[in-house]
Amino acid sequence: MNFTETLSIRKPASFRLEAVDPDSTPGAKGKEQARTRIEKNAAAIDELQYRLFAENQRSLLIVLQAIDAGGKDGAIRTLSGGMNPQGCTVTSFKKPSEVELDHDFLWRVHQAVPRRGEIGIWNRSHYEDVLVVRVHELVPKSVWSARYEQINRFEANLVAADVHILKFLLHISRDEQKERFQARLDDPEKHWKFSPADVEERKHWDAYMKAFEAAIRKCHTADAPWFVIPANKKWYRDLAITEIVRETMESWKMQYPKPSFDPKSIRIE
Amino acid sequence: MNFTETLSIRKPASFRLEAVDPDSTPGAKGKEQARTRIEKNAAAIDELQYRLFAENQRSLLIVLQAIDAGGKDGAIRTLSGGMNPQGCTVTSFKKPSEVELDHDFLWRVHQAVPRRGEIGIWNRSHYEDVLVVRVHELVPKSVWSARYEQINRFEANLVAADVHILKFLLHISRDEQKERFQARLDDPEKHWKFSPADVEERKHWDAYMKAFEAAIRKCHTADAPWFVIPANKKWYRDLAITEIVRETMESWKMQYPKPSFDPKSIRIE
Repeated sequence: MNFTETLSIRKPASFRLEAVDPDSTPGAKGKEQARTRIEKNAAAIDELQYRLFAENQRSLLIVLQAIDAGGKDGAIRTLSGGMNPQGCTVTSFKKPSEVELDHDFLWRVHQAVPRRGEIGIWNRSHYEDVLVVRVHELVPKSVWSARYEQINRFEANLVAADVHILKFLLHISRDEQKERFQARLDDPEKHWKFSPADVEERKHWDAYMKAFEAAIRKCHTADAPWFVIPANKKWYRDLAITEIVRETMESWKMQYPKPSFDPKSIRIE
Repeated sequence: MNFTETLSIRKPASFRLEAVDPDSTPGAKGKEQARTRIEKNAAAIDELQYRLFAENQRSLLIVLQAIDAGGKDGAIRTLSGGMNPQGCTVTSFKKPSEVELDHDFLWRVHQAVPRRGEIGIWNRSHYEDVLVVRVHELVPKSVWSARYEQINRFEANLVAADVHILKFLLHISRDEQKERFQARLDDPEKHWKFSPADVEERKHWDAYMKAFEAAIRKCHTADAPWFVIPANKKWYRDLAITEIVRETMESWKMQYPKPSFDPKSIRIE
């Protein structure tokens, strides 16, 4: 089963988020088999990352977006579980600082683009500037609405520099978010993860869904595709993401570089 | 067995690297037990890191130095194996760029100091500026010899800002380096890791040992201690480092922060 194919967005211009059931598990054969497969994917990605580093020709940028409690942290944990941290950097984009706000919105993310041979995982991204910023009208509509095209230009420049881009939206249901918030409230070790502001933010659910949909419609491109991952089931979320990353990296058919010297000629005293 | 105690440097001013046998395994009970213990340490560090992040009061900076093939990559892999990559950044300091050389030697490392709540692992560090730079006289002696004190001032400032510092020198023997180089030459998948320049660099072995010794004598402090890890045996190296990191983090007795709201009062619609 090819997950890249199964979860690809056929008609981005008319994409509807409603059409994706957060409980669905397309391409999967159940939880147990998924666990085994996720472990195999981790081992495969580890080996592929080693080649990526050795080859030193391209990089991989993985963007994760989701509503609060959508599972970004968990997905990153699973995804990076099989990676060598020396070639993989996770960057979390929080509320921008004053200095960041004094620059164009792509300035801070550009700095976090993975270098050649490496993998970058972004927990939130430049898409926040057309998500939370749009939902709360933090800038005028004329400003945020122009950003979709700016994002496409920015990503096209990265692609031209051999940065491969995969963008994942983790899609959970409103009920699932409620359950996950409640679980945080019920566990004293997770209270610090909860803020009463989260409940306020939840009131904007429909506006967020609309903003996600717009980002996908306007910024899904062949070279920097969006994948909408049904994410109510954590095992499916992790399966789908690791499959797509593995399939993508395998498609590059990376080779170890030939040494510029004859290994047999070297004598170590 | 307390590894922090066992491997602590008693009299830094007269420290002699020769006195540490790279083959020794002080405090360990053999390879099999070490493997079990390393796994337990990984799980413990994972939990401690979660508290570190929740607490958001201090950070941990782990500096790794070693001669070529000394095992930095392997140690980092094991150490970070139990960590959440979202709160842990590995930074490799390579040959400085032109821009970096246009600043003081601490400028580039300062930027990589872990933020509050996080862990930073450095593959090489500002100590290169008193190691390779000293061995090859890349700057005059008057310049590099003044750096020890500059390093101490820099590290004291970090400590004052609640950055805890652990510095590890992975200590292998000259024969062990030869074996590891040969293994790279014998494995086509590792040719890219080898450079004929490594053989040249090996000729400066004694000068490197002297430079390591000087760094430890001059820059071992109570708040930013050096540990010399016998590292011919990879299992011992990984055991000792994970033990010391675990012991250090446990000594902080970190607590989850109390919520600023009453979790029972929250209703999620």
